[in-house]
Amino acid sequence: MAKIETFDNPHPHRDYRIVHVQPEFTSVCPKTGQPDFGEITIEYTPGPLCLELKSLKFYLQSFRNEGVFYEDVVNRILDDLIEACGPEEMTVIGRFSTRGGMHSVITAQMPREEE
Amino acid sequence: MAKIETFDNPHPHRDYRIVHVQPEFTSVCPKTGQPDFGEITIEYTPGPLCLELKSLKFYLQSFRNEGVFYEDVVNRILDDLIEACGPEEMTVIGRFSTRGGMHSVITAQMPREEE
Amino acid sequence: MAKIETFDNPHPHRDYRIVHVQPEFTSVCPKTGQPDFGEITIEYTPGPLCLELKSLKFYLQSFRNEGVFYEDVVNRILDDLIEACGPEEMTVIGRFSTRGGMHSVITAQMPREEE
Amino acid sequence: MAKIETFDNPHPHRDYRIVHVQPEFTSVCPKTGQPDFGEITIEYTPGPLCLELKSLKFYLQSFRNEGVFYEDVVNRILDDLIEACGPEEMTVIGRFSTRGGMHSVITAQMPREEE
Amino acid sequence: MAKIETFDNPHPHRDYRIVHVQPEFTSVCPKTGQPDFGEITIEYTPGPLCLELKSLKFYLQSFRNEGVFYEDVVNRILDDLIEACGPEEMTVIGRFSTRGGMHSVITAQMPREEE
Amino acid sequence: MAKIETFDNPHPHRDYRIVHVQPEFTSVCPKTGQPDFGEITIEYTPGPLCLELKSLKFYLQSFRNEGVFYEDVVNRILDDLIEACGPEEMTVIGRFSTRGGMHSVITAQMPREEE
Amino acid sequence: MAKIETFDNPHPHRDYRIVHVQPEFTSVCPKTGQPDFGEITIEYTPGPLCLELKSLKFYLQSFRNEGVFYEDVVNRILDDLIEACGPEEMTVIGRFSTRGGMHSVITAQMPREEE
Amino acid sequence: MAKIETFDNPHPHRDYRIVHVQPEFTSVCPKTGQPDFGEITIEYTPGPLCLELKSLKFYLQSFRNEGVFYEDVVNRILDDLIEACGPEEMTVIGRFSTRGGMHSVITAQMPREEE
Amino acid sequence: MAKIETFDNPHPHRDYRIVHVQPEFTSVCPKTGQPDFGEITIEYTPGPLCLELKSLKFYLQSFRNEGVFYEDVVNRILDDLIEACGPEEMTVIGRFSTRGGMHSVITAQMPREEE
Amino acid sequence: MAKIETFDNPHPHRDYRIVHVQPEFTSVCPKTGQPDFGEITIEYTPGPLCLELKSLKFYLQSFRNEGVFYEDVVNRILDDLIEACGPEEMTVIGRFSTRGGMHSVITAQMPREEE
Repeated sequence: MAKIETFDNPHPHRDYRIVHVQPEFTSVCPKTGQPDFGEITIEYTPGPLCLELKSLKFYLQSFRNEGVFYEDVVNRILDDLIEACGPEEMTVIGRFSTRGGMHSVITAQMPREEE
Repeated sequence: MAKIETFDNPHPHRDYRIVHVQPEFTSVCPKTGQPDFGEITIEYTPGPLCLELKSLKFYLQSFRNEGVFYEDVVNRILDDLIEACGPEEMTVIGRFSTRGGMHSVITAQMPREEE
Repeated sequence: MAKIETFDNPHPHRDYRIVHVQPEFTSVCPKTGQPDFGEITIEYTPGPLCLELKSLKFYLQSFRNEGVFYEDVVNRILDDLIEACGPEEMTVIGRFSTRGGMHSVITAQMPREEE
Repeated sequence: MAKIETFDNPHPHRDYRIVHVQPEFTSVCPKTGQPDFGEITIEYTPGPLCLELKSLKFYLQSFRNEGVFYEDVVNRILDDLIEACGPEEMTVIGRFSTRGGMHSVITAQMPREEE
Repeated sequence: MAKIETFDNPHPHRDYRIVHVQPEFTSVCPKTGQPDFGEITIEYTPGPLCLELKSLKFYLQSFRNEGVFYEDVVNRILDDLIEACGPEEMTVIGRFSTRGGMHSVITAQMPREEE
Repeated sequence: MAKIETFDNPHPHRDYRIVHVQPEFTSVCPKTGQPDFGEITIEYTPGPLCLELKSLKFYLQSFRNEGVFYEDVVNRILDDLIEACGPEEMTVIGRFSTRGGMHSVITAQMPREEE
Repeated sequence: MAKIETFDNPHPHRDYRIVHVQPEFTSVCPKTGQPDFGEITIEYTPGPLCLELKSLKFYLQSFRNEGVFYEDVVNRILDDLIEACGPEEMTVIGRFSTRGGMHSVITAQMPREEE
Repeated sequence: MAKIETFDNPHPHRDYRIVHVQPEFTSVCPKTGQPDFGEITIEYTPGPLCLELKSLKFYLQSFRNEGVFYEDVVNRILDDLIEACGPEEMTVIGRFSTRGGMHSVITAQMPREEE
Repeated sequence: MAKIETFDNPHPHRDYRIVHVQPEFTSVCPKTGQPDFGEITIEYTPGPLCLELKSLKFYLQSFRNEGVFYEDVVNRILDDLIEACGPEEMTVIGRFSTRGGMHSVITAQMPREEE
Repeated sequence: MAKIETFDNPHPHRDYRIVHVQPEFTSVCPKTGQPDFGEITIEYTPGPLCLELKSLKFYLQSFRNEGVFYEDVVNRILDDLIEACGPEEMTVIGRFSTRGGMHSVITAQMPREEE
């Protein structure tokens, strides 16, 4: 997996929200070996660090030749990004294109800790 | 009815949401014998098991030559899928195409148990 | 007015929602005698009875040559359907097409009784 | 049928095109007695006379309770409007809403006479 | 200003909602003298009286040659309509078209009195 | 195959065009046995006969459990409809839904005989 | 009427096309005194002169309080603009908003002289 | 930075909402020196002062040749506008166009003080 | 490259048109090594042979890890498909997603031989 | 102006079409000094050379701080690109955003030489 880089949150005292949408996601179905296509959306409130856009692109590209199920992709991205930047809260959404006539959306979330 | 297969939830410790949309649903009107067409949406938070996509497709196809009312289809799918995978919560939505100038949407839900 | 027929709710133990949309509604303006056009949406949670689709179509057609104001149409449909099927809750929405450059939406509701 | 009124073409020396679209057309199916709904488009190059908009509206409304097939409606409107205003060329298009799952478009034309 | 007429609410015992949308609103910028264009939406729950549609159209037309700022138009319409019909609650929204590359939306509200 | 009924062209002296669109078409893939879905469009200039709408619906429904390839469906419908009504010209278009990530459109035509 | 200003065509040796769209056009119906609204599109190939945008705006605004029929507006604008800039060819299109349920499009054209 | 001008809130006793959308925003990426493009939305409830539209346009234009990150732009605009007009609450949203296949949305907010 | 399979044209005596659209195309930029994404459309009139859909999918997938320029991809696909099925005429269109703020469409064609 | 680079047409024996769309174009109005925004589309059939995408981006960016009229921008881009790559035919389209309520499209073309 490509390393996810970060930079210091330029406005750490304010609670604000960042959304990145990558409509060019592709991985490989572990069962059939066929390519899967989808759109990955990452929404978060930064803690001390923000995700650096270029390394995020390379990180998402590193799934290109990996065999991984839809349900797994979204949860693994969430785990990796939480570890990389320690956000206040984060949601990852995967919208996957039609297979067998059906399309699917998977949404995983790290909720804000209740105070 | 085709058997609905499942696989182990790969991230059982996180509460996440899965949506599958099948726009190619057809059954038969029990009154007129005419084919009905619609789109079935399944939304759920998995418990220990996830719905396997291919068997879900075959399950939905098994209504193709069955005579069932709109109100019944949606509730029966919800019953069958709850039994198959024991979700935390689940919603089934049927959007049916125009009959007599009118189109219809039926939504049935198994709410999350309050703790 | 045409009689509204009903059938027994096939899943009376579950709280589910039914929506019917009729985009082909027409009545007559009581002031000008000119035809009015609109779309009627009926949303409800069935009690013991469901609205039968064909008789619902005939019921809505029976406004075709009636002179009635927008505000009145929507409230009368709500009254008639409540009487016909005794729902848990029901909403009727009328979206009427442009008159004098303006278009209008009227929404009337029978809320769920608080327990 | 309501009388179609006309007014003198204010720019008779120029060849220009007029389009009127009435999305609120309704008539009755002669076979089933059920109402039909559609959108009528009238396109023409005026000769000495233009169609007066208000009387055109009343003319189209006079089909409201007439039993007439789609194929017939469009051809009759074309015949009546040609007679009323003697255009250089005229096209009438009827776009009818869904019946038996199918929707239909009928287009009839009086071509420009070749010189 | 044109007088706003009203009629008796035909269903005073039910809490229902009326929306009127006028996409053909124009006034004059008091600073530049240039015409402004916009869409006015009026949403309310009637008290004893409903707004009569034709007089509402004339009332909105009476801004045609008036010099008023966006922020002022929306608040003045709200004041005038409250005075005219004494609603349970009312919202007025003005969506104004592009000036200097920017477009604007102003929303003013008379909330329902808390009981 | 269901019989396609016709009726006498009510305006045989004018060259006009009829379009019927059926978005609820389904057949079976002869290779995989899986259901296929699509939208069939029929465009024609009637000769002495017009296609009767209800029997056309039944004719298209008779492919529901037939195993046929996309390329074949469209050409067979064109052959059958030409035989049924002897049109001046006719086009049949099949728009089929996604299989293997790809969707397809097949268009077959009986051109007007040159005079 | 406001004066239409022009500037020298910066590329007089090439045949190129200019389109200006004004969606904020309003005039007054000479019959009812009611305001009319529409969108005016001007398309032309410049001769020696181009239309200056700001004066074009003022020219179109000068119809604001004029009573004029749809058919007349479009032809008069075409006449005035031809006189102002002597184009190679020009088309003026007026798309007017709904009156009596109908909307209208008027298109007038000065064709290119055949050489 | 251009000075942001204000004018007295014409309806200071009512809580109402103002939205301005500028789809023509551009700045420069501080890392690559390449231009960035986006749409800035400003939503607020005015306190004693409203933002003057023309000076707001000039203020947003003053980022045109500045090198600034997405996360920073949105927070700085929020800071500057709060200082300029002392609103009851304010939200600034930046929707930035595709870079590296990804597009981004940043949302910063000054919440209403709890009473 | 994967082999492109074909099957006998089931209606060789009629001139008809086949369109296949693959929105899930990806290759690699030979200059930057970065993945490119796009949609490939294939339109043709079959000669003696039709393209088999499944092998066409595999053929298009075989570009997944190839470094090729946009202009080259489209021309190579056209060459390969002409060789595989000997069509009457064929067009290949590649619509590629945004790079450097710009998106591109490449269209290559084997015209029908003039008779 | 930035230099426009080219590369050898990889398929010089076939007549094919290339379209590049840059929705992020900005220049400055020479009259008001205000920024203008628009979308530039370049369509051409390559001769011996193709336009290199990255240098094309830089070339279009070099208008960022230039004062030019809409009519001039489009013609100058056409002149510069013809000189750079000697195409068989080329069209440049500029779609510019709203000024004074009006938006504009300018299209300039180098037609194919008749043989």
